[in-house]
Amino acid sequence: MSSKAAVPFSRDSLEQVLKRRFFFAPAFEIYGGVSGLYDYGPPGCAFQANIVDTWRKHFILEEDMLEVDTTMLTPYEVLKTSGHVDKFSDWMCRDLKTGEIFRADHLVEEVLEARLKGDKAARGQKVEEEEEDDKKKRKRKVKEIKNVKLDDELVAEYESVLNQIDGYSGEDLGALIKKYNINNPATGGPLEPPVEFNLMFETAIGPSGQLKGYLRPETAQGQFLNFAKLLEFNNEKMPFASASIGKSFRNEISPRAGLLRVREFLMAEIEHFVDPEDKSHPRFAEIKDLKLKFLPTAVQEAGSNELVEKTIGEAVSSKMVDNETLGYFMARIYQFLLKIGVDPNRCRFRQHLSNEMAHYASDCWDAELETSYGWVECVGCADRSAYDLSVHSARTNEKLVVRKPLDEPRKVNDFEVDIDKKKFGPKFRKDAGPVTKFLTERTQCELEDLAKELADTGKIVTKVPGVEGEVEVPSELIKIERVERTEHVREFTPNVIEPSFGLGRIIYSVFEHSFWARPEDSSRSVLSLPPLVAPTKVLVVPLSSHSDLTPFVSKITNALRKAQLPFKVDDSSATIGKRYSRNDELGTPFGITIDFDTVKDNSVTLRERDSTKQVRGTLDDIVNAVKTITYDGVSWTKGTAHLTPFETQSEEK
Amino acid sequence: MSSKAAVPFSRDSLEQVLKRRFFFAPAFEIYGGVSGLYDYGPPGCAFQANIVDTWRKHFILEEDMLEVDTTMLTPYEVLKTSGHVDKFSDWMCRDLKTGEIFRADHLVEEVLEARLKGDKAARGQKVEEEEEDDKKKRKRKVKEIKNVKLDDELVAEYESVLNQIDGYSGEDLGALIKKYNINNPATGGPLEPPVEFNLMFETAIGPSGQLKGYLRPETAQGQFLNFAKLLEFNNEKMPFASASIGKSFRNEISPRAGLLRVREFLMAEIEHFVDPEDKSHPRFAEIKDLKLKFLPTAVQEAGSNELVEKTIGEAVSSKMVDNETLGYFMARIYQFLLKIGVDPNRCRFRQHLSNEMAHYASDCWDAELETSYGWVECVGCADRSAYDLSVHSARTNEKLVVRKPLDEPRKVNDFEVDIDKKKFGPKFRKDAGPVTKFLTERTQCELEDLAKELADTGKIVTKVPGVEGEVEVPSELIKIERVERTEHVREFTPNVIEPSFGLGRIIYSVFEHSFWARPEDSSRSVLSLPPLVAPTKVLVVPLSSHSDLTPFVSKITNALRKAQLPFKVDDSSATIGKRYSRNDELGTPFGITIDFDTVKDNSVTLRERDSTKQVRGTLDDIVNAVKTITYDGVSWTKGTAHLTPFETQSEEK
Repeated sequence: MSSKAAVPFSRDSLEQVLKRRFFFAPAFEIYGGVSGLYDYGPPGCAFQANIVDTWRKHFILEEDMLEVDTTMLTPYEVLKTSGHVDKFSDWMCRDLKTGEIFRADHLVEEVLEARLKGDKAARGQKVEEEEEDDKKKRKRKVKEIKNVKLDDELVAEYESVLNQIDGYSGEDLGALIKKYNINNPATGGPLEPPVEFNLMFETAIGPSGQLKGYLRPETAQGQFLNFAKLLEFNNEKMPFASASIGKSFRNEISPRAGLLRVREFLMAEIEHFVDPEDKSHPRFAEIKDLKLKFLPTAVQEAGSNELVEKTIGEAVSSKMVDNETLGYFMARIYQFLLKIGVDPNRCRFRQHLSNEMAHYASDCWDAELETSYGWVECVGCADRSAYDLSVHSARTNEKLVVRKPLDEPRKVNDFEVDIDKKKFGPKFRKDAGPVTKFLTERTQCELEDLAKELADTGKIVTKVPGVEGEVEVPSELIKIERVERTEHVREFTPNVIEPSFGLGRIIYSVFEHSFWARPEDSSRSVLSLPPLVAPTKVLVVPLSSHSDLTPFVSKITNALRKAQLPFKVDDSSATIGKRYSRNDELGTPFGITIDFDTVKDNSVTLRERDSTKQVRGTLDDIVNAVKTITYDGVSWTKGTAHLTPFETQSEEK
Repeated sequence: MSSKAAVPFSRDSLEQVLKRRFFFAPAFEIYGGVSGLYDYGPPGCAFQANIVDTWRKHFILEEDMLEVDTTMLTPYEVLKTSGHVDKFSDWMCRDLKTGEIFRADHLVEEVLEARLKGDKAARGQKVEEEEEDDKKKRKRKVKEIKNVKLDDELVAEYESVLNQIDGYSGEDLGALIKKYNINNPATGGPLEPPVEFNLMFETAIGPSGQLKGYLRPETAQGQFLNFAKLLEFNNEKMPFASASIGKSFRNEISPRAGLLRVREFLMAEIEHFVDPEDKSHPRFAEIKDLKLKFLPTAVQEAGSNELVEKTIGEAVSSKMVDNETLGYFMARIYQFLLKIGVDPNRCRFRQHLSNEMAHYASDCWDAELETSYGWVECVGCADRSAYDLSVHSARTNEKLVVRKPLDEPRKVNDFEVDIDKKKFGPKFRKDAGPVTKFLTERTQCELEDLAKELADTGKIVTKVPGVEGEVEVPSELIKIERVERTEHVREFTPNVIEPSFGLGRIIYSVFEHSFWARPEDSSRSVLSLPPLVAPTKVLVVPLSSHSDLTPFVSKITNALRKAQLPFKVDDSSATIGKRYSRNDELGTPFGITIDFDTVKDNSVTLRERDSTKQVRGTLDDIVNAVKTITYDGVSWTKGTAHLTPFETQSEEK
């Protein structure tokens, strides 16, 4: 057991530290707070800014992506087309007596899990929080828990329900609530059947109140809508990716679980536009040997949670992961997560089950991070096919396509429809429009059938949307024939691979993965944030307030500022140990101590947060070491190899 | 006349360039757009990110401010307390026939200005767009313009109205509309009287629909609400500043003027908390000799627009600017604006008139930038006194104060109120609360009067808010006497100095200040963005697609990436001149050309955008020169002094 694991993890201690050091706090706390809304204080804000900066360099700069900043206010029509108006919702149940509102799937989950726990206890089995390392685990307080033994059959039923909890419709949930007699867990009172609740925040744009709008639920739509402009900006070259970093909103029914489930959150999303006929990636070779932990559909469907570890190269070549571009991004996501402090042993890629995945998606994997709340979905990585561009194009009649010159012109011999418009109008009158539209929008396959019908019977008889009864089109009015043409250009709607990051969830997970307490004193907590993303890199500590030391403080801070290393000076009268402790909680990786030897020979001591090891060197050498370790990813051992180890007597007390 | 001014500025050309190069575009354009909403494309997004980065370094890092990131969703109560629910509104007039809605003050302004223009024309005077260099000038299309001569008296009246246009109430505006017979300018149809329209976007938080919220109209409130936590984070040290960068929202009645008046915008705000008894600033000496252009209240009230130029030191010592801290920030704002490309000759500080300024503010200056729309308010710099902390504290009963140990304890001899609560209840019944509250909240001055009344008449007779008739408190129930206490601590509510930046407006103004066309060909536009904030720093141009040159492209791009200099490669077949032209429009300050000499001796050519001057040197020397000029603020002349001037024959053709 490493020393970092000597003191068991406590979520309470972590939350106390994060609040005490103002990483974040409930928003509007002096007004009683609003659940699901949080403010980031100075260290949280700096940590977030560093993660955004790392993300921008890792993805946007490294891959030459086109960053856009689009509006959060979004008109109704756009989100109607994208499907959010109809489908971005959860089911809720009201308790008419208390006025409480429950999210139906969470309610069923909590109550059944509590009953299973009670059953276990009644059977004399050990019930531990740690046992429930389930991806869907959340904080729960179900008051009805009694240690009641259940029928074996019922236990199996409950377990089966819990395994499928993400896939139930509102009706299903209502039936389960009725069948298992689920009530308000706090009062035992009855609940109304589930009703649908759209999770978008609604508002009115402009003074008339007639233009309905929403706060965006994701940044993706703004990128899709700008596709044509982005393609032009990219000189019509494919593939390319756009990216966006910004706030999105989700009006959660009853948010809990701190930063994991909030109503306003920072997202970073990439939309990589690719030719559907070629999803290879030019840089795949660079990452193909990276090993990841997978939880594929097949394993989940077999009722197991066992991870499959293999290289992304193997995962793609075996078709477990659909294509190279999707695999490339999964590897890049993994590299990013490790860079900012995620524990590789607590990161897995879970494939979506068929009932979770949108009908149009061809594959989808979530990067999940393990926390005290279970495995948490932090990054989604989906192949959304041509869905988004197609629906917006259909709705607006704007072409959202790529025209790619063919290497060699090709002959096509397609069915084409030739309508005699002069006769069509008088015959069909008001139906002429719908009938024309219907006929011109048929696929090649359908046209082949219609051509045959026309040849065989001299007419087409068909139903047409928006027209009553059957429509009969005689052959005098229409021709459907194969026509040979030479094409020089292939026109296609690009597919979209979408890596989508919930930065708040990642931030919280990194806090959990970085938090530990010193074995010698469990009240001394440490946040081992990587130097690259730590809010402050260096704490400058003068040993005493003696005026001889003062000039060295500004000498050091000037050097640090020049090296772009954010620092804080702590010249308080607290002991050195106390001052370091405070900064261990803030995740500050380095401490520079100024003492009376500094006055003599310009040397200072550098302390490393996690090991509390110290080295001594000239001011320049020390600042250089810190810079190399922080920004070039060099290890402490290597970065300080040329410096003198420094034995301390009692400074950490 | 400098060569940059040789071709007259054209807003149309600028807008075409900004759209063609996708700096920004109307949001949801393929859906027909929504007025007042814009998306930033890749160069706009990068430019904005660089400005934010510069802002963060210039203010937050340089001054060690505490950055916070607070939520945009804000509950009703908070904005009710801050005054926004009641006062953050404009007046609008409806045309019931057409459904159009007009912002009342803009309507009056537009129509009167159009009539004055018509009058001028009728008098045979020259009417030029450029003549109206008025801060309030906006794009206007008033169809009723006829060249009708007006009475001299009416002209004077109109001019007086226009000078006071920002100060009118809704009733005033209604009276003016009636008096001057102002109708729908497009149709001549009648308008309804002005009604108030709150400019905040409203929404409901949570599923019950009962928690009313708004999108924040500014980032300031989130900072005020966290004051106590920030003070604690700062180890109770004063003064200190918090800062926040984020989107805010304003539901404009009828937004026009492009990026200048939008419904969703990026703000950067600082709240500097200061002791009301000491508004000096420790670093004031560093900036006191900086000269600014002022438009103080006195000059405006005298009907003049003439700027007063003096040092900020003189402005503060003469009390034209209220205090050192306010003056310090004005100077720092000016330095920031110049750094990112504002023309110093088109930047002024305008003091608010008494009818513009909030009643609690002790002084307020706007940094205004001159554009083709007139002088535009881009940064507000206000001393908001203790207003915000006081109202939130009063509403929530949370103490938002600073406790400062006194250098020496002091004796105070204040009046104190001692109420006999046992007798108060029976005597005043339901009024006991209001009467107690009224008496305990009196100032020292009022208590002195009440004590005298009590001594003289044996009772207090007074009106109490919320209580009918007069209240009589006999001396048996109350004592008001001086009590001597020793105070060791002074408790005070800090005052707030608030510099508040509208980044979108600044960005647009910088575009105007940077835009010009080459005299030799007015279709060749240039955006002279400073290297520090330019979206891309270097364009890499191989002279031909010959394979000998290819290895040098990656050699150069690797060197640029290592030096953190964003670049683009243009290896298209367009002429060098055309490739440079494209990048002149994108504001790219440097071009590096690879030619066949590069293959021989590893040398490349560096071209400067504005002068089109070129120098030649080794790859390392050239990259170093670019880095120094971009990030260290060194001039082109100095940064390339050691390199060989390079004469071109025809590359710019």
